[in-house]
Amino acid sequence: MMDQISNIQVVPCSSSNYLKPFRVHYSQNGTKKSWDFMRTHDSVSVLIFNTTSHCFILVKQFRPAVYMCEWEKHTPQSPEDKVKEGEEKEESEESHGDPPTAAAGVTYELCAGLVDKPDLSLEEIARQEILEECGYDVPVSKLRKITSYRSGVGVTGSKQTVFYAEVSDDNCVGEGGGEPQEGELIEVVKVPLQESMNFAFDESLPKTMGVLFSFMWFHSNMAPKYKISTNV
Amino acid sequence: MMDQISNIQVVPCSSSNYLKPFRVHYSQNGTKKSWDFMRTHDSVSVLIFNTTSHCFILVKQFRPAVYMCEWEKHTPQSPEDKVKEGEEKEESEESHGDPPTAAAGVTYELCAGLVDKPDLSLEEIARQEILEECGYDVPVSKLRKITSYRSGVGVTGSKQTVFYAEVSDDNCVGEGGGEPQEGELIEVVKVPLQESMNFAFDESLPKTMGVLFSFMWFHSNMAPKYKISTNV
Repeated sequence: MMDQISNIQVVPCSSSNYLKPFRVHYSQNGTKKSWDFMRTHDSVSVLIFNTTSHCFILVKQFRPAVYMCEWEKHTPQSPEDKVKEGEEKEESEESHGDPPTAAAGVTYELCAGLVDKPDLSLEEIARQEILEECGYDVPVSKLRKITSYRSGVGVTGSKQTVFYAEVSDDNCVGEGGGEPQEGELIEVVKVPLQESMNFAFDESLPKTMGVLFSFMWFHSNMAPKYKISTNV
Repeated sequence: MMDQISNIQVVPCSSSNYLKPFRVHYSQNGTKKSWDFMRTHDSVSVLIFNTTSHCFILVKQFRPAVYMCEWEKHTPQSPEDKVKEGEEKEESEESHGDPPTAAAGVTYELCAGLVDKPDLSLEEIARQEILEECGYDVPVSKLRKITSYRSGVGVTGSKQTVFYAEVSDDNCVGEGGGEPQEGELIEVVKVPLQESMNFAFDESLPKTMGVLFSFMWFHSNMAPKYKISTNV
């Protein structure tokens, strides 16, 4: 995947359908406080290991928010400052060389999805994501919960539950790739087990902590089964 | 720490000083798209290991955003729905028993801080946080970078860099606890090495993935030095 990203334009967003800040007023041990936060859904993610090819199955996609972090490091002013200082500055801004390539915003992630269907269990939602994003059809009974944790504790604080799923080539029923009609443009990536620790700690490949954690978990817990060294 | 949380009141927040959504318009492979995101600072976090007591040093604090996730599961309606349906519903809402206790919002985290001082290196910022939050004075040279990763890839995408620092009781110069004048109410927590994996996978103790990942990293990389089993 060689995404071409162009025509970048940043505007302040007074009303977003996706990012809605709320404010909570509360008393902590008698002291009045307030905190701004955003509501979000809990989520599930899945470490998928293909036992036929001894590869981890990850997804990779262009993440505008990640790209904008790098884009802003390249420009001398923040969008906020630009807005404050008025329109006339926008065209004449200094820049430090070329803007970052799309690769700066492409991240490697675990297959994952939001918990936004109240009638489905976490396992069932994880199963759907494995099928939609990665093209593997696995029964719910093959999903093993690793653990859960809190993400974005300052802003969203949502609960994320991580599963482990072993699949084989026989479970592969499609190409995955997410739902293009919903704007998803997801590439399925195979990371060979033997290369997985070098991959995990290669900082030139942007990735989520979910990938790092689950690879480490696999090496500590599954390594004996697959006869690999635990030295990382 | 037994925080008492009361008088919870949620209001929509049309203009937050902390959460400012922006919208980026861009073209991806010729297709026009847009995405709402928030600017945030990069951050550093530190796995601190006390070689005198063979304990990890974590911080623990009440996180309103985490608490509100649990609070909303307890109430049948989201704050958004309440706002849409008008004020009169707020008093008469159904509830599923008592609201969650403060413990539901208290999370265990790595010592961490924002990268918001352009003149300081990541190591220098990490060093300051270790001193302010945990009370240990360690030279920058003792900080070892573990790796970096992307967090909140859908919303902020900021880069987080994780360090490892070994400290001893001799480095302890204060109680830590953050900066109460800035509203920080941080408790320093010691987790004994031998109990650390049970702690990490005990889901009744809310924690960030940084804690999980770095404990696993320690067990894979430092275990031989401290003569502990790698079975987790």
